[in-house]
Amino acid sequence: MAERGRRGRPRSAEADAAIVAAATELLLRHGYGGLSMEEVAERAAVAKTTLYRRWPTKDHLAVAVVARLQEDDEITDTGDIRKDLTDYMEKVAGGLNRMRAAGRRPGEDSTSAGTVAELVAASGRHDDIAELRGRLYARRNALARELIERARRRGDLRADLDSEVLLDQLAGALYYRVLITGTPVDRAYAERLVAAALDGAL
Amino acid sequence: MAERGRRGRPRSAEADAAIVAAATELLLRHGYGGLSMEEVAERAAVAKTTLYRRWPTKDHLAVAVVARLQEDDEITDTGDIRKDLTDYMEKVAGGLNRMRAAGRRPGEDSTSAGTVAELVAASGRHDDIAELRGRLYARRNALARELIERARRRGDLRADLDSEVLLDQLAGALYYRVLITGTPVDRAYAERLVAAALDGAL
Repeated sequence: MAERGRRGRPRSAEADAAIVAAATELLLRHGYGGLSMEEVAERAAVAKTTLYRRWPTKDHLAVAVVARLQEDDEITDTGDIRKDLTDYMEKVAGGLNRMRAAGRRPGEDSTSAGTVAELVAASGRHDDIAELRGRLYARRNALARELIERARRRGDLRADLDSEVLLDQLAGALYYRVLITGTPVDRAYAERLVAAALDGAL
Repeated sequence: MAERGRRGRPRSAEADAAIVAAATELLLRHGYGGLSMEEVAERAAVAKTTLYRRWPTKDHLAVAVVARLQEDDEITDTGDIRKDLTDYMEKVAGGLNRMRAAGRRPGEDSTSAGTVAELVAASGRHDDIAELRGRLYARRNALARELIERARRRGDLRADLDSEVLLDQLAGALYYRVLITGTPVDRAYAERLVAAALDGAL
């Protein structure tokens, strides 16, 4: 049995939580370049060996931060699919904007992908991160697909809907603007995006 | 007047072309990690100072390679917008797959974003590259928007079409699958994607 801390949780879970909390604060405040394993260990009051055993590189730790932040993005089902998808896309855009701005001073260039790009590169550098990221997005998208499926069963969406492609189109447009074209994403854009995906171009 | 080489072009243009050709071959064969400024200078038979004067970092040179490769992606207008968009998306997917596979042995993991991710990170690291990349995609998307506009004027697409969002949805879905979810993109996916964007989810 794992050794337990004062709140009854295994010590390792407490240490993990402290590490991820410290890393989240550093990443959001100072960006990817300002995330230092040394400083995370110090702030979380754990030995560096503990930190490295759990997250072998800074890339791994940064992805753990994003996974934690994404857990907060709840998907709400009000029964109005246009509103629900728009709300969800606004949340995704908000998360991207937060990472895009991490470590930047207010007012500084807001079109660069910033830390979002570094996180993508982290997946490119480590196969285990790419795999973890694949699982993370599969889980996240499964929740969104349930929302879409319910709307389809209510008859609010077409019966032969390709829900995988619909989600790729929606989330993809946001990531594309942040990572590739360097254009803004916000509530107004989420509304245009959902309208285009629901109504079609024909 | 610039000094001219034997084919009448300024020597600097000849050197640039030789540099980009050497960099393209190295990048496609060995991936981002295998692109070395030293080796590019040697293969292109230019002084390293010449290379660095034109492209101050490997990131800058890699983006020049992508810009050159993208110039080959022609957009064809046959008058059938579904076919034209599908063909174009297949070309974009092909370019992404080529970069994704750069430096990998045949049969090796094909879901990692590989060099595509490194190129995105290069934009995140250098503001001048982010700006250049923005201009590059603006020009590329302007051509695709003309195709869409012609179809709209013919009455094949809805009159109130949001062509910026349509392109974000189409290209975005491909980049999202390559960079984020680690899923394949091919002709069959391009067909599903264009169908979803044209027909809409309602």
